[in-house]
This record gives sequence, structure tokens and C-alpha cells, in this order.
Amino acid sequence: MDWLRLDTGDLGPGMEEYVRRAHLADGQIRRGACPDGSMIGWVDLPAAMLAGEAGRIVEEAGRIRERFDCLVVIGIGGSYLGARTVTEALLPRYSRRRDFEVVFAGYDMSQDGVADLLGFLDGKNFCVNVVSKSGTTLEPSLVFRVLLNELAERWGDKAIAERVVVTTDPERGALRRLAREKGCVSFEIPPGVGGRYSVLSAVGMFPAACAGVDVVRMLEGARGTMDFLDSSPPAENPVCRYAAARNLLYESGKHVEIFAVFDDRLRFFMEWWKQLTGESEGKSGKGLFPAGVVDTTDLHSLGQWIQDGPRIAFETFLFVQESSTNLSLPEGIWDDGLDYLAGKSIDEINHAAYLAVKDAHSAGGVPCIAFEVDRLDEYTLGGLFYFFQRAVAASACVLGVNPFDQPGVEAYKSRMFELLGRDNG
Amino acid sequence: MDWLRLDTGDLGPGMEEYVRRAHLADGQIRRGACPDGSMIGWVDLPAAMLAGEAGRIVEEAGRIRERFDCLVVIGIGGSYLGARTVTEALLPRYSRRRDFEVVFAGYDMSQDGVADLLGFLDGKNFCVNVVSKSGTTLEPSLVFRVLLNELAERWGDKAIAERVVVTTDPERGALRRLAREKGCVSFEIPPGVGGRYSVLSAVGMFPAACAGVDVVRMLEGARGTMDFLDSSPPAENPVCRYAAARNLLYESGKHVEIFAVFDDRLRFFMEWWKQLTGESEGKSGKGLFPAGVVDTTDLHSLGQWIQDGPRIAFETFLFVQESSTNLSLPEGIWDDGLDYLAGKSIDEINHAAYLAVKDAHSAGGVPCIAFEVDRLDEYTLGGLFYFFQRAVAASACVLGVNPFDQPGVEAYKSRMFELLGRDNG
Repeated sequence: MDWLRLDTGDLGPGMEEYVRRAHLADGQIRRGACPDGSMIGWVDLPAAMLAGEAGRIVEEAGRIRERFDCLVVIGIGGSYLGARTVTEALLPRYSRRRDFEVVFAGYDMSQDGVADLLGFLDGKNFCVNVVSKSGTTLEPSLVFRVLLNELAERWGDKAIAERVVVTTDPERGALRRLAREKGCVSFEIPPGVGGRYSVLSAVGMFPAACAGVDVVRMLEGARGTMDFLDSSPPAENPVCRYAAARNLLYESGKHVEIFAVFDDRLRFFMEWWKQLTGESEGKSGKGLFPAGVVDTTDLHSLGQWIQDGPRIAFETFLFVQESSTNLSLPEGIWDDGLDYLAGKSIDEINHAAYLAVKDAHSAGGVPCIAFEVDRLDEYTLGGLFYFFQRAVAASACVLGVNPFDQPGVEAYKSRMFELLGRDNG
Repeated sequence: MDWLRLDTGDLGPGMEEYVRRAHLADGQIRRGACPDGSMIGWVDLPAAMLAGEAGRIVEEAGRIRERFDCLVVIGIGGSYLGARTVTEALLPRYSRRRDFEVVFAGYDMSQDGVADLLGFLDGKNFCVNVVSKSGTTLEPSLVFRVLLNELAERWGDKAIAERVVVTTDPERGALRRLAREKGCVSFEIPPGVGGRYSVLSAVGMFPAACAGVDVVRMLEGARGTMDFLDSSPPAENPVCRYAAARNLLYESGKHVEIFAVFDDRLRFFMEWWKQLTGESEGKSGKGLFPAGVVDTTDLHSLGQWIQDGPRIAFETFLFVQESSTNLSLPEGIWDDGLDYLAGKSIDEINHAAYLAVKDAHSAGGVPCIAFEVDRLDEYTLGGLFYFFQRAVAASACVLGVNPFDQPGVEAYKSRMFELLGRDNG
């Protein structure tokens, strides 16, 4: 795994003990000897996917791209962020492909959003991938009902089998029933894979494949990372070192972890990381508050607070070394004061900003952890997903909480369903 | 200002004293009797704009929309977030207008981003609005050099006058010089208006007008808010109450303010708010950490931490009551368990989620401040910008810091320019 480097900085002699604990936790997770030990289906998932559903995902995605011109992916939380992260990271910023488009819906409850989606789909030859483990999550269910009606109205009842792909529990729930009754193509969310650990299942891989991403390569990247981590000694193992560092910093009074991605393509990776850490650790009155910045954009926004505000935060950088294109700053046709940079690549200039920020924030009393990645492609993105899942699960165990439950999200839901008059029987 | 309602909850008897201090601070800001007293050009800006540049902005924007098919807005920080906030809030989510497009660039240093921008502009009849007070901010300068070359190459040197609109200092700096030398249309960033307080100047209003937004109406909303605040007694004045509440909560040990917008259209408003608060208050070791969530999306992400994590945060909600479209949940064609909601509008369901979340988080020990807005349109968005500028400036003064400087952003910049070999002479 030479494409990923981790520098935790010098965190003092306490680090060794935390690395030991993290190594122990990682081993327990691999064996299922952790809280909710049945929820470790994601640990071997890259290998299982490559041996299993991956081929069918690629095949079905090809069929979808051939027959339709737009896929609406309906999901929220773990059934949304992973797939969105992949498309944001690997598709271009401005010139999104126009021959086949992947759009996301059902990730909130916006009346204008749904109305506009219907307008947008007007005249488009679209299909739907509805993603929900339980099949009853409110936000996606609402949008799915609207689009199911639209499909049936435009193309008749048989369109449901042709144009709806279901990703859900292999046996249970409303969507599994729909797939059976109507004969929809369906994929599985394995029972041992929770929402925030599901991106490398069909949940993330099917929409990604439809967007034209090489998901086999992505799964190979995840499997390579898995193999590396399984054989890496604790002192060099980045899972143990990252899990150790963040627990040590938390114990020392740093309550906020600012995940600083140095690339706009990683904006949604940051959002995915926020769910992964926040839901895995934020319980029993414990857990780092997961915040995020996208640099250099947010240096002109949150940079001031980070440099000079209260010393309650540390920063975790994720920096990508090389772009996939070549572009140097040309000679100017006007005296804009940039002549000293002419001929330098923008990567080089961005790299200087990254080094400078790490220096300045460290010197200002903000401990900095740094991940550096050679390039952002299918292989490394798959590896990053897998890496952070392993590291955050281990980190939560070191903190002493269950990485796989989310008891706190029930509080508002029961109150909401009461307000909406749902029969709880 | 009956379109905006504020509920701070019951914060105890200490609130009165904080309201008094906030009222004092607000008065000092209006008179310029605050730190950096010359930087209060934004206080009367809505009225000044309506009497001044607004007409020319509308006129030039009309000319741009007629002659070209795409505007690239180049800026970062305060020269980016305001305009982006307006377009994200007021243009539809999926079906962005295709007859005239506004895109943003120069808000980071991404080699792939710039390369893709050039590809995207290939064949497009585009123009540029470059926005920078100093004219030397690194990120926008890099992209502007690239696009200036592109313009000149495609349409000759005269294209600079025809296709570049400059928004900068009225007298000084590199861009003012360019505008003079080449004869570009230009707008002013008044000297007393800092970046994060500039959205209602040409900085935000010109790109917004080009995107088809009624900026006069937006400025009228801001002026209406200004008039209301200037005559509102402290105990009922939402500027005083919001500034008081957040200072009181900060003093009581809540170090994180989570700005919770209940509408994806307000995602960038949240980003704008983060810059406004973070840069105005995060200094001298003080200041709330400004975080944000977009609900209901992030209830499936950060909701768990908010409900059950450490009690170091409070939440400030911004909820929009009514969408601009009508849409009720239709009867289903399949048993999805949602029949109890059929006929309800999505607004109604979203509202129930909002009430439930506020209840659940309050009960869980997270103080909740709530802003409710009737609808999101030009008038109310203009009012919201103005309101939060006044409230945050007053809040910073109560905290005892200068709301208008940002000394901390120099630390990384000087190190970066050193690494890049710029002559500092």
C-alpha cells in the first residue's frame, strides 16, 4: 500500500500504548470479537464482492447504460453518501458526461426538489435504483413512490420490472417483496453490513458502475488495502496509528477533528467520513465531533478560526499528490504579479499551500495528522474507503463504544412518526 | 420583518444582560464606534446599492445574458460564497437553466478542475467576472490568467474589454489597473466592506443578476430588514437576541454551534454563515466553532453524534416553511407502508421532521435556537444575508474581538509564498 502515507506527527510517549490498544481492537473486529460482532460483514467484503456480485453489477450497469439515458439513485445516509462520493471524486467537475447521467434523490424531503426532479425527467428515458436496507426509510420511500407512479404512468406496469433496480436486504423488507412480486433486478445489502460500512457493496458499486466507473478496479484497491492491513505490524499499520492518534488527542482535550481534504473532488469523501466517524463514535456522551473543510477553498473561510480560535481541535489532512491532467501556469499577457509562478504546475502550487497550512496550523497549536495519496483513481479511492472503515471501527472500540449501532437516531424518528400519525402497531 | 421568526428557547435570567450588551454593540457598529470602525460600509449598503450601482448591475447583466451563453465567476472566500449561495438557493436543483449558465472557478487550486473548465468552455461563447478586492489573491489570479489567455487567443485582445467584467477596489490594485488599461466594465467593492460582508455589493449581486435573479428585490429585502432592525427595541430585536444567545451559550461551555439548515437549497448559505462567523469571531483563542448540517440529509449522518455525543454543542436551525411548488404524496400503486401520508404535502412531512428533531435534540441536552422563514425567495434571502451580518458583527463585539479583521490567515500565506519563491520586496 505504498500509495498511501500517514504522518501522525510526534504525539509523545503515550502513543505506543494507544497503538497497542488499537491493534487489539482491530484484531477483535476481524474475528467478530467486538460489540455487535455479527456486523463485520464489511471486513471481507472486497474479496467477497470480487468473487460474487461484482460481475453481475458490471453486466447490469452495462445494460442500463445501453438502454436508458439517466439513472436516478434513491437513498439517504449510508445508502447515498458512498455512491455520491464516487461520482464526485471520479467524474469531472464541470463537464459531467451527457450521454448517460446519474442523479441522486431521496436524500432529503424537499418539495421543490421533487417537483424539479419530475420536470428534469420529463422527456428523459430514465430508470431508478432504489437503495434501502429496511425498505421503509422515509425520505427515499417518498421519492420512490412518486417515481414509481411516474414510471407506471409513462410506460405501463411492466416498466417496474424493466426500469427499477432494487438494492436491499437479501431476504426481508418491503423492497425485497417488491423485487419478488414485480421481477425487478436486485442486489443485496448483506445482513452484516451496516449503512455506513456499505459503500463497497452493491449500494455504492452499482450506481458507480452505471456512472462509468471501473468498480472491479475499485474493489481490487480495497482488497489490496485489506491484504496489506492484515499483514502489517502494529507500529507501521496506519489503521492502528490513525486510531491511536485520534484517541490520544481526544483524551488530551481535543474534541473536534477537522478532516481537511485538499481537493474539491473529495468534498463528498469528507461527508462520507463525517457519517462514518460521527455515527460510529458519537454515543454515550463520547466521540470526537467530526467537522470538515475543503482546501484551499475553506482557508478563506474556516482558516482564521483554525489558526487563532480556541485550541479544541486537531486536523486530519487528506492530500492528493498528482492530478490526472497536466497543466502549468502559462506566461501572462498582462502584469498580474504571477510571473514568478509561470511554468509551475498547479499541483505544485497547491502542494506548497498544503505544506504551508500544515506548518502554520501546527505552529499555532493545532496537531496535524496527514494522509498523502499519490493520485485519486478507482484503485486508491476503493482503498481509502476500506482503510477508513477499518480505522474508524477500531477507533470506536478503543474509545469503548459500539462502532456498529446508532441508537440516537431513533429519538427524533419516533417523535416524527407520532406527529405524522403513523400507527406504531 | 414578519417573515422571520426567532425562538431562542429559555436560556435563563442571564439572557437579559447579554441582550443589553448586544444592543450596545449593535449601536456601536452602526455608528462605527467599534474596532475597525471604518469597516462598516456594509451597514447601509442595501440602501446605498439601491440608490447607486444596482441599476447598472441589472443593465450590464442583461447585456451579458443577451450576448453570451456562459459566465465564469472567478473568486474565493467572500468573493465566491455569497454569489454561489444565491444561485444555489434560488435556481432549481436538477434543471439548471441551459440558455445561460453561471459557473464558478478560482475557489481552489485544482489542476484537473482548471483543465476540465477549459474543456467545458470549448465551443462556448463565454465571458468572465473576476472578483477580488486586492486583485492579487492567489487562487482566482491563477485561473484568471489561464482564462484571459484563452479569451485573447480565441477572440483577440479586444475580447478583454468585451468579455471581462471586473469587481474590485474602486481605486487601487491590479484589477482596477486592468479595467482602466483595457476598458473593462467594472464594479466597486467599497473600501469599508470586507469580503465576508460583501454579498450585497456587486460581489454577490452582479453574478446573481447574470443568473437571472431579481437583485433589486433582494436588496429591498435587505433594506427592509435594515429598517426593521434600526427601529426594533432590544428585547424584540432578533439581532440582539441571537447575538446574546450564542454568547451566553459559549460562556456556558458550548464550544460548537451547529447551523442546521432544513433545506438543501440553503447548503451554501450555511457555508457563507461559516465564513461569516468563523472569520469574525475565531481569534485571540476565542470563538464558537462554526459547524453545519443540512437536514434531513445529515440526520442520517451527524444526527447520532448530536443526539448522544459530548454535550459541547448547541444547534441553530434555519427552517423554511413553504416551498414555491405544490406537491402532495400521491396514492401508491404498491404497498410501501406510506398510505397514512397520502395527500400530505412534502412540506408538511418535512415540518414534522423539523419539529421532532428540535424536540429530540433539546431533550437530549442540546440547546436549540430556531429561525423560521415563511419562504425562500429574493426578498427573504436578501434579508437573511443582512440579518446575519448585523447579528454576527454584534456577537463578535460582545465576545470582545474585532469582527472585521482576519489576522490568522496571514500565517500560512507568508509561509506559502516563501515556498513558492515569491519576492516579498
